[in-house]
Amino acid sequence: MEAVLINGKWEIPENPENTFRAVNPAEKADLPPIYPVSNSDDVERVIKAGKIAALKLRKISNDRLATFIEKFADNIEARAQELVDLAHLETALPKEPRLAAVELPRTVGQLRQAATATRDMSWCNATIDTRSNIRSMLGPLGGAVVVFGPNNFPYAFNSCAGGDFAAAIAAGNPVIAKANTGHPGTTKIFAECAFDAVQSTGLPKATIQLLYRVLPEDGFKLVSHPMIGATGFTGSKYAGLKLKEAADKVGKPIYLEMSSVNPVFILPGAIKERSQELAQEFYASCRMGAGQFCTSPGLIVVQENEESRTFINSVIKLFSSNKPQTLLGKNGLRGIIEGVKVLKENGAEVLAGGEKANGPGYAFEDTILEVAGSVFIENPDALQTEAFGTVALIVVAKDTEQMKTVAESVEGNLTGTFYSHTGSDDDSDYNQIAPVLRQKVGRLLNDKMPTGVAVVSSMNHGGPFPATGHPGFTAVGIPNSMVRFGALHCYDNVRAPRLPDALKDKNPTGRMMRCIDGEWMSSDVKS
Amino acid sequence: MEAVLINGKWEIPENPENTFRAVNPAEKADLPPIYPVSNSDDVERVIKAGKIAALKLRKISNDRLATFIEKFADNIEARAQELVDLAHLETALPKEPRLAAVELPRTVGQLRQAATATRDMSWCNATIDTRSNIRSMLGPLGGAVVVFGPNNFPYAFNSCAGGDFAAAIAAGNPVIAKANTGHPGTTKIFAECAFDAVQSTGLPKATIQLLYRVLPEDGFKLVSHPMIGATGFTGSKYAGLKLKEAADKVGKPIYLEMSSVNPVFILPGAIKERSQELAQEFYASCRMGAGQFCTSPGLIVVQENEESRTFINSVIKLFSSNKPQTLLGKNGLRGIIEGVKVLKENGAEVLAGGEKANGPGYAFEDTILEVAGSVFIENPDALQTEAFGTVALIVVAKDTEQMKTVAESVEGNLTGTFYSHTGSDDDSDYNQIAPVLRQKVGRLLNDKMPTGVAVVSSMNHGGPFPATGHPGFTAVGIPNSMVRFGALHCYDNVRAPRLPDALKDKNPTGRMMRCIDGEWMSSDVKS
Repeated sequence: MEAVLINGKWEIPENPENTFRAVNPAEKADLPPIYPVSNSDDVERVIKAGKIAALKLRKISNDRLATFIEKFADNIEARAQELVDLAHLETALPKEPRLAAVELPRTVGQLRQAATATRDMSWCNATIDTRSNIRSMLGPLGGAVVVFGPNNFPYAFNSCAGGDFAAAIAAGNPVIAKANTGHPGTTKIFAECAFDAVQSTGLPKATIQLLYRVLPEDGFKLVSHPMIGATGFTGSKYAGLKLKEAADKVGKPIYLEMSSVNPVFILPGAIKERSQELAQEFYASCRMGAGQFCTSPGLIVVQENEESRTFINSVIKLFSSNKPQTLLGKNGLRGIIEGVKVLKENGAEVLAGGEKANGPGYAFEDTILEVAGSVFIENPDALQTEAFGTVALIVVAKDTEQMKTVAESVEGNLTGTFYSHTGSDDDSDYNQIAPVLRQKVGRLLNDKMPTGVAVVSSMNHGGPFPATGHPGFTAVGIPNSMVRFGALHCYDNVRAPRLPDALKDKNPTGRMMRCIDGEWMSSDVKS
Repeated sequence: MEAVLINGKWEIPENPENTFRAVNPAEKADLPPIYPVSNSDDVERVIKAGKIAALKLRKISNDRLATFIEKFADNIEARAQELVDLAHLETALPKEPRLAAVELPRTVGQLRQAATATRDMSWCNATIDTRSNIRSMLGPLGGAVVVFGPNNFPYAFNSCAGGDFAAAIAAGNPVIAKANTGHPGTTKIFAECAFDAVQSTGLPKATIQLLYRVLPEDGFKLVSHPMIGATGFTGSKYAGLKLKEAADKVGKPIYLEMSSVNPVFILPGAIKERSQELAQEFYASCRMGAGQFCTSPGLIVVQENEESRTFINSVIKLFSSNKPQTLLGKNGLRGIIEGVKVLKENGAEVLAGGEKANGPGYAFEDTILEVAGSVFIENPDALQTEAFGTVALIVVAKDTEQMKTVAESVEGNLTGTFYSHTGSDDDSDYNQIAPVLRQKVGRLLNDKMPTGVAVVSSMNHGGPFPATGHPGFTAVGIPNSMVRFGALHCYDNVRAPRLPDALKDKNPTGRMMRCIDGEWMSSDVKS
């Protein structure tokens, strides 16, 4: 049985609740290693060790913390081949370009950005009022951050290396990683890389801990225990809402990234102008990662007319043109089957695909459905059921007014997109509908598909409920994603030597941005 | 019956659920005006009108919005005498200096700070990455913010003029004010001042709406309706937790400021050095506003020794020296009676006071209690029961170690305070205990009592649950308090003319701070 990492020790559990194995989704075959389902004693132990590590981490300099993160990134690169081989086995995601050339570089790049932000310190919103001698900043939460990673990004959102991990650690918090059970082996390699970096940089031993799986009640304990700091969760709406309920009850922050159909409004002028190009762009985006991207375009809204029919015919051809791709696993396939069933039961018609695919692995046909705008707005909840694969629903609205009503019926989403005529033909439609959609989505796009999530500081990978739990935060984009894992620490008349470096008169880096008496600057406080 | 303000009209409800009158707490006498308890139709109407106003407000320039806030502040000053007279009747708070010279100037000052922040625009964290052409900022929530004000600050935290109101409006959201039923008349004057300013600056008519009271189920509807943006609540833990549950279930942000006993640790060297001075400072702070301040020091921790006994004797004398002050009302008195009962039942001994006071108004004796550290740490929850008046519990710890355990047992609080020797005598104790308390409180103080809440940008009037609902936010301090009422709006490849001014290449004010390609600056984006 594989070891878990608790309080600085790799331990093979003596009394696991149960065991499990990962599955190669391309062959529906169990992989050899056996992983434990941890018991509640072990869950208690990681929480307590995390609390102690949180207090100890406060004494570690930002420079050392950043060095740890960079060393971790180096360690990952040193084991890249192993990571690519194993993640491919566990997820069936292509080695090239996806795992090796895209996701792994993105993941280490994200870690290095986080290290830079830690060293720079500007992220913590240091604010100093000299007249009152009141000073404040975002500081760590005082307990470990629990990270639940999703199945679809084994690196970039991994509980032990991905966006939430990077943000939580860079903000000065220890992390308790709960592996996604789809790729426990991949997660273990990350934990080994991280723990090696913990040891070589002398960080508290419980800075990073790893469990593979816990019982549901222990999951609730993890997110609601008085000794934890907060939780970052990426995964299903069902699990996310259960965890949210447990955390909310005791006022523990929980950041969730749950589900999104990512509506794409293609305005009439755009279809008239570049129908074939749009069909191809849409299909390519929808098929990316076998449709298992949080930002996959699952809802396309067009207006009824001849050009839209030509567009839909092109789309049908494309969705019928390729072999189905292997999905991440059995649960994913089941979710798609159920999702498509709900869409059909509520009036959507299958134009292409619609069935489970034959073959050795878990797969579903590329599927495109259609529903009339009038039907959609009668039953928007059911018709926004997410089918997490290459599945999309085209809503055909009868006019601009109905398109706007569709926008009003849309739930909170990560993204919302408009394609419009390259000239001004669609400006009137855009000006009517965009303000409505703006309030429903985290990221508003023009003339490009939403599947690319750039790791830049202006990115918002977030949005109103139920896409996430709070409209003010992003899960991607350093340093804004770090803010989620900070507590506002105010120091009122605290003696100078007792202040954290970020709030002392002297600018600790010589270039950290601080708001001093209402002005943002990088100079020292003038005494 | 008094009129409510719904969608730009002052209306006398035809079918109120019920009616109520305010009470003069100094005489336990009903005041003449009759106020409606609104029915659920009226609640629906304010929500819908708020939603429409939210969309319309997006087209109003920041400059006009700021002008509205300033005009509102002017209107308040023009009716200052009326406000002071009525608030005094409704709350029994002293006209001078409290209402006229302290709280009213603070309230208009806060509004003017908010107006400045709106005009300045730097608060919205505008972030631009030119290579990817992704731009983001905090924008309004897309629905009205519901504000529930507390009884203890009829101006500064008023649902229609106070901190949450100012922050929500300044961030571009309409406000639905639910008056505190202790001072409905005061709130009505504010709503009149605000609505006059709405009209004279041409803002959407439902930018500000007012209800005096609603049934509990309509309160839940207000905070959880899909069309509202968020809620700001200041008040009791009981009501706050109920509203939080309703809002959390549907993922609507709710910011709560609920309860706090504000622990004050007086280290041995400080007591040795300035015992009498500390006793006076503590008593003055505890008696401020008849103890009805969120930041009133309700828990004092000292170490057992002769000097501490002298200190406690001085405290007893002070707590026995003055007539009880009039409380805000019957519920407050009942809460204190219950709170003191709980403290006594759990082992606290009354050293002075402890009884309801005789006299024409609602009042309770200045009350000081004592409990041993060993008893406190056995039962910290009950012994942190807030008694919202001039009531405090002295915890006598046997040594530094036990003082630290007391700190570990403390709940989330708004503030935590250390008094220590002016030299270095207490440094060792401070260094052991302060890191523990730091994680439990929003504002850490040295050598001053927590009752002064300066309205400066570095203030944190917040803290971990159950003091508030989230440790990352403050209810006081412009512009940080505004961040609560913003949604993160990202624009990915959005055409230049369609961007909000804050994200256009040209800096809209010439001095707004924006993060462009990782550097904070006030210049334009270079094309």
